[in-house]
Amino acid sequence: MLLALVGSCNSFISSTTFVASQSRRNASTSYLSMSAKDFPDLRVMVNGMPGPMATAAAEACLRRGIKLAPVAMTGPDVSPQTITVVDEDTGNSASVKLIPASREEELDWAVAGLKAGVGAFNLVAIDYTHPSAVNSNGEWYVSNAVPFVMGTTGGDREKLIDHCNDAGHFCVIAPNMGKQIVAMQKALEDLATQYPDSFGGYQLSVVESHQKTKADTSGTAKAVVQSLITLSGDDTFDVESDIEMIRNDEESIKFGVAEEHLKGHAFHTYTLRSPDKSVEFVLKHNVSGRRIYAEGTVDGVLYLAKKMKTEKVGKVYNMINVLEEGAM
Amino acid sequence: MLLALVGSCNSFISSTTFVASQSRRNASTSYLSMSAKDFPDLRVMVNGMPGPMATAAAEACLRRGIKLAPVAMTGPDVSPQTITVVDEDTGNSASVKLIPASREEELDWAVAGLKAGVGAFNLVAIDYTHPSAVNSNGEWYVSNAVPFVMGTTGGDREKLIDHCNDAGHFCVIAPNMGKQIVAMQKALEDLATQYPDSFGGYQLSVVESHQKTKADTSGTAKAVVQSLITLSGDDTFDVESDIEMIRNDEESIKFGVAEEHLKGHAFHTYTLRSPDKSVEFVLKHNVSGRRIYAEGTVDGVLYLAKKMKTEKVGKVYNMINVLEEGAM
Repeated sequence: MLLALVGSCNSFISSTTFVASQSRRNASTSYLSMSAKDFPDLRVMVNGMPGPMATAAAEACLRRGIKLAPVAMTGPDVSPQTITVVDEDTGNSASVKLIPASREEELDWAVAGLKAGVGAFNLVAIDYTHPSAVNSNGEWYVSNAVPFVMGTTGGDREKLIDHCNDAGHFCVIAPNMGKQIVAMQKALEDLATQYPDSFGGYQLSVVESHQKTKADTSGTAKAVVQSLITLSGDDTFDVESDIEMIRNDEESIKFGVAEEHLKGHAFHTYTLRSPDKSVEFVLKHNVSGRRIYAEGTVDGVLYLAKKMKTEKVGKVYNMINVLEEGAM
Repeated sequence: MLLALVGSCNSFISSTTFVASQSRRNASTSYLSMSAKDFPDLRVMVNGMPGPMATAAAEACLRRGIKLAPVAMTGPDVSPQTITVVDEDTGNSASVKLIPASREEELDWAVAGLKAGVGAFNLVAIDYTHPSAVNSNGEWYVSNAVPFVMGTTGGDREKLIDHCNDAGHFCVIAPNMGKQIVAMQKALEDLATQYPDSFGGYQLSVVESHQKTKADTSGTAKAVVQSLITLSGDDTFDVESDIEMIRNDEESIKFGVAEEHLKGHAFHTYTLRSPDKSVEFVLKHNVSGRRIYAEGTVDGVLYLAKKMKTEKVGKVYNMINVLEEGAM
C-alpha cells in the first residue's frame, strides 16, 4: 500500500477552493496557447521519480517553462534523496526531494507547506507511479485536494474514477497520454461509426513492435483494429491472435526501430488491402522513447490549471477532453 | 462538342417519373446490401467506351451482376462499332453498340427505345467521357430524364450542378469515385476540424507518384495536405511547391509501383514527424489501375437506383452521400 491519508488541513483547503474559484470563471483562451507565464505560480509535484516516465514528464514541464514542486512522492522502498532534473533541450533544471510513499505524515505536511507557499490552487500532481498504487494515490490526492494528471495504468479504474467524480475532484486520467495517438484513434473510431463497411472486403494486416520486455499485444493496436474491422467488415480477424508482434531486437531494427530505442518503442503498421490488391491503405504510428507521452501529460496539466480557473466543481477528464479544449 | 439535345419525348417521361415515384417511397435497406437482384430490370448505359475508365466501370457493373444497356455513347469522332465487354473475374460479358455523340438523333431514339423496353426508371447512365463534354452531356441527361453517375472531371462544375439541381434530376457527380479515398479524406477533414493544432509543431512531408503523363500535382494530395496543415499548424508548407512529385518510371518503381501499373497509378505517402523526430505518423494510399474508381461508380449507380425508389425529387449527390447511405 502506498498512501491513504486524510490530511488534517483538508476541510480548510476545500472551502477556500470553492470560494476562490467563483471569482475566476473568466478565462477563455485555449490551454494550447497557454504557457508557463499564464500560470506563474503553478508548481507541479511529479510523483514516481526516479522512474523513467515520471522523470520524462518532469523534464517536459521544465521544457515548457513550468516549475516543479521541490518535493515529490517516490516508491515506498526507495531511499529518501534529492535529485536534480535537467531538461537537455533548454538547460532548465530543478532539485526535487523525493519522499517515500511510506512516510505518509511527511508527505502530508509537505503538501500543506507547498500550498501555504504558492496558494492552494497552484499545485497540480503528475502521477507515474505503480499499478498497485493507483487507487490509494487517487484517494490521497482527493483527501489533500491536489488536482492530478495520472498516466499510471492498472488498479481498479472504475473505483478510481467514481471516487474522483463523487468528490468533484479536478483530474485528468488516461491510460495513453500520447495526445496525437488518441486523436488518431478517435478519427478512426468516428470513421468506422460514420461509414461502416466502406472498406468492405478489404483485408487487414497489423504488425507492431515493442521492447522485448512487453509480453502482451499493444492495447492501442487492439483498439485501432476494432475500428478497422468495422470499416472492412473483416470479422475473421482475431484481435488476440492475428496481430503480428515483434519482440526481437533484430526484427525490430528491420521494422525501422533505431538501436537506441530497442528498450522503449511502440511501432505500429496497419494495412488494408483491396481483394484484388490494387488498392492499399497503410497507417503507421511509430513512437520512440517517452517524449510524446510526457508532452501530452503537460498538456493535461495546463488543461487542468485552466479548468480550475473556469469551473466551480471538478471531475475526471480524459485526453479526448484535453484535445477538444485545444480546438476552442 | 458532344451532345446538347432536347428529346421530343421528354415531357412525357418526366411527368411519368413524377407520378410513379410517389408509390415507391418504401425502400429502407442500405444500397451496400443491395445487389443486381434488387434491381433486376436496371440497365446501365456506360458512356465513354472504349475509353479505359468507362470500360473499367462497365466491367465492374458486370462483376456485380448488373446488366449493361446494349447501346451507349462514344466520342463524336469514334467510328460506330459494337464492342464486347468482358469481366475477367466472373466471365460475365455483354455486347454494346457504341453510337458517336455526333449522331444526336440516333442516341435520342435509342434512349427512348431502352426506356420503352425496361421502364423509364430502370435506366441509369455512367459518364466517363471528356472534360469538354461535361456540360452538354449533363444537359442531355436532364433533357432525356436519364439519371447519371458522372466521374468525368472538368467543365463548368457550378453550371452542371446548378442545372441538375434546378431540374430535380437524380445524379451522382464526383471528381473522385474512389469511395475509400473519399472516406479517408473526410476522416482527416473531420479530425482537423475537431482538433486543430493537436499535431502542433509536427513537420509534414508528402510524396506522390503518378503516371508520367500527369503534369499537375495530385488533387487528392492537395486536399489531404490542407487537413494536415490544420492539424500541425505548419503553415510554411506550400501546397503548390512542397509536395514531392514522382513522374519517372525508375523512381516510381522504387516508390513501390509495380511495372505493369507505371501507366496508371496514384501512390501517396504523407508523413507527420514530431520536432525531435521521436514520433512519426505515416499515411499511405496507393492505387494501381482503375478498379477502385470503377467499383465506387457502381456504388453510385446502386445508390441512385435506390434513391429513385425512395425520393420524389432528385438532386445532385456526391460520394459523401453515397458513403453516408452505406451506414444506414
